[in-house]
Amino acid sequence: MAPLSPLLVADLVGIAVFAASGATAAVAKRLDLFGVIFVGFLAALGGGIMRDVFINVQPFAFVDWRYALVAVLTAAATFRLHPTVSRLRWTVLVLDAAGLGLFVVTGTLKALDAGVPPLGACIIGMLTGIGGGLVRDLLTGEIPTVLRREIYAVAGLLGCVSVAALDAVHLQRPVSIALAATLTFVLRMVAIRRNWSAPTAS
Amino acid sequence: MAPLSPLLVADLVGIAVFAASGATAAVAKRLDLFGVIFVGFLAALGGGIMRDVFINVQPFAFVDWRYALVAVLTAAATFRLHPTVSRLRWTVLVLDAAGLGLFVVTGTLKALDAGVPPLGACIIGMLTGIGGGLVRDLLTGEIPTVLRREIYAVAGLLGCVSVAALDAVHLQRPVSIALAATLTFVLRMVAIRRNWSAPTAS
Amino acid sequence: MAPLSPLLVADLVGIAVFAASGATAAVAKRLDLFGVIFVGFLAALGGGIMRDVFINVQPFAFVDWRYALVAVLTAAATFRLHPTVSRLRWTVLVLDAAGLGLFVVTGTLKALDAGVPPLGACIIGMLTGIGGGLVRDLLTGEIPTVLRREIYAVAGLLGCVSVAALDAVHLQRPVSIALAATLTFVLRMVAIRRNWSAPTAS
Repeated sequence: MAPLSPLLVADLVGIAVFAASGATAAVAKRLDLFGVIFVGFLAALGGGIMRDVFINVQPFAFVDWRYALVAVLTAAATFRLHPTVSRLRWTVLVLDAAGLGLFVVTGTLKALDAGVPPLGACIIGMLTGIGGGLVRDLLTGEIPTVLRREIYAVAGLLGCVSVAALDAVHLQRPVSIALAATLTFVLRMVAIRRNWSAPTAS
Repeated sequence: MAPLSPLLVADLVGIAVFAASGATAAVAKRLDLFGVIFVGFLAALGGGIMRDVFINVQPFAFVDWRYALVAVLTAAATFRLHPTVSRLRWTVLVLDAAGLGLFVVTGTLKALDAGVPPLGACIIGMLTGIGGGLVRDLLTGEIPTVLRREIYAVAGLLGCVSVAALDAVHLQRPVSIALAATLTFVLRMVAIRRNWSAPTAS
Repeated sequence: MAPLSPLLVADLVGIAVFAASGATAAVAKRLDLFGVIFVGFLAALGGGIMRDVFINVQPFAFVDWRYALVAVLTAAATFRLHPTVSRLRWTVLVLDAAGLGLFVVTGTLKALDAGVPPLGACIIGMLTGIGGGLVRDLLTGEIPTVLRREIYAVAGLLGCVSVAALDAVHLQRPVSIALAATLTFVLRMVAIRRNWSAPTAS
């Protein structure tokens, strides 16, 4: 089990935010307490589980109990406090953008370290960031939001590509992570403020 | 291939019941013969496939032909005999509760044996029990039942926790399995009789 | 990375067709450019990803960049040219049948080579062929077509069984592949022309 480094703390904050987003969607669909916790758990950890399955290691979500605990407690708290969570919409969006940046960047690096070539590692990194939201939407009977509108996955993908490029020129890992995650975060926030969307077919 | 022990027979009975439940849902959605068999197969074996993917072994569902054969034959028989299966609703509920108890308990033990720590092993054990039903509902276009009502997954989770606890104090495996599976079974039956449900958010 | 053999070229053609089919479904659901590419990618490569997860290797879709590139470019082109792609319906059906034949046969052989027994290898082979379409339909909020009508998966399954049988009698691999893929292709085309469907329950 890794010590409680700044990176791990940031990771756990990202997981808490994703769990709250999953739990909020589940409450809106009138799922019961178990359903809310389950959807919150998978919204928070589903992307990382996919990543670990693809790189052939036991998913960290099952191996390090702190991840599961943070996801479960946050989802349970959201079940109780969901009106408050809904009022915090802006805070949740900001933290979600931060979580996205962190997840795609660390996902890409873990895939590279497992020997996956750069293009594949970027796709796995992006799936780490959007996989939880995909599972959340599938479980609650929605076509995934990330496929329909807004610049979300594309912001994540840029983070993957930049961290892979910075790593290829042997920049130090903490610097690469900080730069690429910040880039993703800023792009995502600008996209929200300016209401940017990807085009749909004419 | 394991010899035909009492545990394997019980496992196969559980698989047959889950396959019948999946096939019944598929018939209700007017799927064709292939669809009914496919949904039955995944309802029966999807939970175990998830478990084996997470602990990084080739899924038993593909390795031991008896599992696939029982699932396919039961689903095909349900396709023909579905009015009879529907009349057996109470029998199916009882056998399903028994299958749940068995799957969560053996799933937890397999995860522990693969080196997954107790909390993660319990989550994997629960997924072994509810995973097939999740896949069945997703394939037939429903929000998973297990997330919406009734004490089902929670009964399974208690079975996981108890078998992990009994195993930690080095009780003999057959005794641990029998105790924890029975606990799950009884809790699930009482929940059905008393119409217990998990709470939904207010 | 494998050299550009005839088999690989055929594989890439199959992937392009599956990507076009996924992208067309995504355009019809009004997904944005990212969603169209993402669904196209998974429609083309989802079956192979499942296969590789089940036989415990890193998915080729992430390891060999040519697969991802062909899928992404085809999906992007379909986003632009979807009226043309729709007019090519018959061409797409023919190429799709060819892709199905190829994917199920190579999927079965890869599973056999990974030590999976014949029955399980056939199921994995079939999943390789139909998995992408399953994911495409789940992501676009549909009950999977393959479960509802037409002889599609069954044609694939016959290809799996024949290639496993031919391989068991030690026929040369290229001959086995050609025979079994052709059988699947012909059966699928006849099923389309004669409008064959699997039965539904009465």
